Amino acid sequence: MSELTAVAWDGSAVRYLDQRLLPHEVRYERARTADEIAGAIKSLAVRGAPCIGVFAAYGVALLRRTIADDGDFLAAARRVREARPTAVNLAWAVERVLAAADPLREATAIHDEQIAVDAAIASNGLALIPKGARVLTHCNTGPLATAGGGTATGVIIAAQRGGKKPRAFAGETRPLLQGARLNYLELRDAGVDTTLIVDAAAALAMKERHIDLAIVGADRIARNGDTANKIGTYALAIAAAHHGIPFYVAAPRSTFDLSIDSGAAIPIEERGVDEVASFAGARAAPADANVYNPAFDVTPGHLITAFVTEYGVLRPPYAETIASLEFRPPVLR
Amino acid sequence: MSELTAVAWDGSAVRYLDQRLLPHEVRYERARTADEIAGAIKSLAVRGAPCIGVFAAYGVALLRRTIADDGDFLAAARRVREARPTAVNLAWAVERVLAAADPLREATAIHDEQIAVDAAIASNGLALIPKGARVLTHCNTGPLATAGGGTATGVIIAAQRGGKKPRAFAGETRPLLQGARLNYLELRDAGVDTTLIVDAAAALAMKERHIDLAIVGADRIARNGDTANKIGTYALAIAAAHHGIPFYVAAPRSTFDLSIDSGAAIPIEERGVDEVASFAGARAAPADANVYNPAFDVTPGHLITAFVTEYGVLRPPYAETIASLEFRPPVLR
Repeated sequence: MSELTAVAWDGSAVRYLDQRLLPHEVRYERARTADEIAGAIKSLAVRGAPCIGVFAAYGVALLRRTIADDGDFLAAARRVREARPTAVNLAWAVERVLAAADPLREATAIHDEQIAVDAAIASNGLALIPKGARVLTHCNTGPLATAGGGTATGVIIAAQRGGKKPRAFAGETRPLLQGARLNYLELRDAGVDTTLIVDAAAALAMKERHIDLAIVGADRIARNGDTANKIGTYALAIAAAHHGIPFYVAAPRSTFDLSIDSGAAIPIEERGVDEVASFAGARAAPADANVYNPAFDVTPGHLITAFVTEYGVLRPPYAETIASLEFRPPVLR
Repeated sequence: MSELTAVAWDGSAVRYLDQRLLPHEVRYERARTADEIAGAIKSLAVRGAPCIGVFAAYGVALLRRTIADDGDFLAAARRVREARPTAVNLAWAVERVLAAADPLREATAIHDEQIAVDAAIASNGLALIPKGARVLTHCNTGPLATAGGGTATGVIIAAQRGGKKPRAFAGETRPLLQGARLNYLELRDAGVDTTLIVDAAAALAMKERHIDLAIVGADRIARNGDTANKIGTYALAIAAAHHGIPFYVAAPRSTFDLSIDSGAAIPIEERGVDEVASFAGARAAPADANVYNPAFDVTPGHLITAFVTEYGVLRPPYAETIASLEFRPPVLR
């Protein structure tokens, strides 16, 4: 797994790994048109909020080269920006590239910064992981999710590299099983002692397996700390609070949306029936089943112990500590 | 679905529906030996605590006819009794048949009583379901789970028949998806407006879909109200308490184990890797993955608002109300 590259610029296209096929098949594709770029995001071939941002940045830089007409180009960029509604990194990256004098250089900078930011997050998170800690996590937040070193999973991997021997419990993350398919492998390949669980077993694991802390990623964070992340995060945060277990969110500055005061302003994407009615291609319920399939939920800031960012660890009161991000200079390599 | 028969005595064997194949295939099998009877329980071809009890009762009655030697018969009955450790109905039913003068008549009585008991539970639970209530449930607790009318799902179906038009939210119940495969269909076929969700979406559904109450079944209940039930129940109870939503458990007297003071005495069955790493042959994680797969969890009594039994609704203090079950006469048809 360690040689997998989520996203890369190859000179005439944006190369990406089709993450839907993992872990069974490693297939790289090339996106050249707005349809292909937005399509790869919508279909979740490219997923993970920071990774989507990097991919979209390269994508819009490519479209600037291939679409001469300014109006057509802006319409195409808008289609990319609106491919998914919840994560803020996508809109943020597209806007940055649109505002730049040299779009490709800006996209490359976004990618380089993500790598540097992830390294800083991992380094800052390290202090939160006691030696031998049992760490619960959810979804995939490793290199495949960020096109860098990862956020929450990056912290766990850094703890392993730092000799802390953490023990990870990875939720499988229904419906699309990013935990089982991607995160379990990224952690295991990094040498972390990792146990896979169904999402519904997390509360029992907290009690019976003596989880020391939970750490997850994020798709969008409001000024008050309300955090949109993969469906199931909210239930984990409630269970962590019930057990008195610290609940951390690891995310870069680009995931904080300082334009919104609370999670009530975050649109939650609802996805199709088939993701729930089937499992990795095997059918569990009728194809015409009535399904409620929110891809994300919003965890209130008061259930979050701290945020791990590239600038350090932010603790309550979030109204102050998150606001302080506004004028921080970027972390550079 | 309504014509499906979970368990039946056919004169020379115990006929059962292989519930692992539902909803795709309706296949009936016949169990004749202790291996076949215990095997059907272990493999979850027959599942649901009350249904397992009825099946084992017929099974032991059959073994009494086919095994002449008393020692051999008792050893065979013991193998059936120990096929699964968590649900108490299995041991309870086997002991009843062993103690009876006429084993087959006793097994038939257990089955008939289950049907009567389920009807009484449904009737007693009705008062807890407001008109138009949004009801969250988990796993399968309908007719397939009890060989009668069902427990928690039986209450919801009774509310529908009573014109209350409940709206059900059914957790899919990973790893084996009894919610998606069985409960969704039993509810829908009974005319209940039912929405399928992944288990990790239940907490969000409580908040965003304004769930009015949760009701689930049980595999074993201790004197203090601690309740073993399908994995995920504990997380639901924590989330229900967090949202101030009533959390009910519907179960017959035979599920209460008055020999134990608390849930600490309930053995929790851990099952194999493959249930989590795959579903119906579709693989999500490596076959050699390190998996923690508890089939059940224990919800502390203090998180349970009330128990719905055939004798009525039991509320705290459970040390008193559950103890009162000890000398109640059986509910008869």
